[in-house]
Amino acid sequence: MNTTPAKPFDPVRDANEEALRTAHHLLKDTRFASLATLDADGHPFASLVSFALDRAGAPFLFVSRLSAHTQHLLANPRAALLVGEPGKGDPLAHARMTVQCQAEPVPKDSDDVILLKTLYLARHPKAQLYADFPDFIFIRLKPLGASLNGGFGKAFRLTADEVKPK
Amino acid sequence: MNTTPAKPFDPVRDANEEALRTAHHLLKDTRFASLATLDADGHPFASLVSFALDRAGAPFLFVSRLSAHTQHLLANPRAALLVGEPGKGDPLAHARMTVQCQAEPVPKDSDDVILLKTLYLARHPKAQLYADFPDFIFIRLKPLGASLNGGFGKAFRLTADEVKPK
Repeated sequence: MNTTPAKPFDPVRDANEEALRTAHHLLKDTRFASLATLDADGHPFASLVSFALDRAGAPFLFVSRLSAHTQHLLANPRAALLVGEPGKGDPLAHARMTVQCQAEPVPKDSDDVILLKTLYLARHPKAQLYADFPDFIFIRLKPLGASLNGGFGKAFRLTADEVKPK
Repeated sequence: MNTTPAKPFDPVRDANEEALRTAHHLLKDTRFASLATLDADGHPFASLVSFALDRAGAPFLFVSRLSAHTQHLLANPRAALLVGEPGKGDPLAHARMTVQCQAEPVPKDSDDVILLKTLYLARHPKAQLYADFPDFIFIRLKPLGASLNGGFGKAFRLTADEVKPK
């Protein structure tokens, strides 16, 4: 520790084992999230999305090209995904995590599409209704890092590698 | 209407009376929201916040200067607030609205602080616990417009004036 200049107080700690467990639980056991994107003017936008995890533990979306967030991600891949534990009472008392991501649309003719569809439908069976709509595409969200908030005053940062459940 | 070039299909309609009722209900009767901000690198960020409405019907926050979203808003006022109806079952089947906003921090010595604190504590009585913490400030979110999603295929845009409940 240096004595001068004073390091500004940083309330965010590196993730410990318990924080990683909570983070992986949130990604594995939550089905919906808030997605932050940038619109054509660079203004932040937030929307509700469903998501699933690929085999490497990274989140991905199945979204319509007609929706605003898809258009944003196709024009600018910078995004964040907020996953939180649904629960009764004060949501600020429950754990939640913001994963900063880089969006990577999956080409329609990619070999990955069949596996992603299987994984997505396993988590969201009702999506079968629109699984074959031509305007729907898969978009991978490659994690760049994350901030976990485990409740009042319990803030942790996770590296890109730490984010993904093994 | 021009005949050429063809106008691209726009699935978003101007808000009708029912859409405005839903929008105002969401702002008046929801206590928590997802907030999209921009971090120091211009990357989108999403976090969970509690909010209340001022007397003009505009949302405002009561947040710690130590938190990431507050630091983002103080450096860059562009934001969006996603409000949704909490409910059981598929959240994508419930109405939700994205309000694009300009953040305006309220100076600690402003005459508005007393009224904002009263309005905020009426909606969030538990905030009394930290109401007098020196790091907490009020930030108004001036609406610039909104997108309402009333369920699958029901998308509406609202002007800045339409967003605020009267």
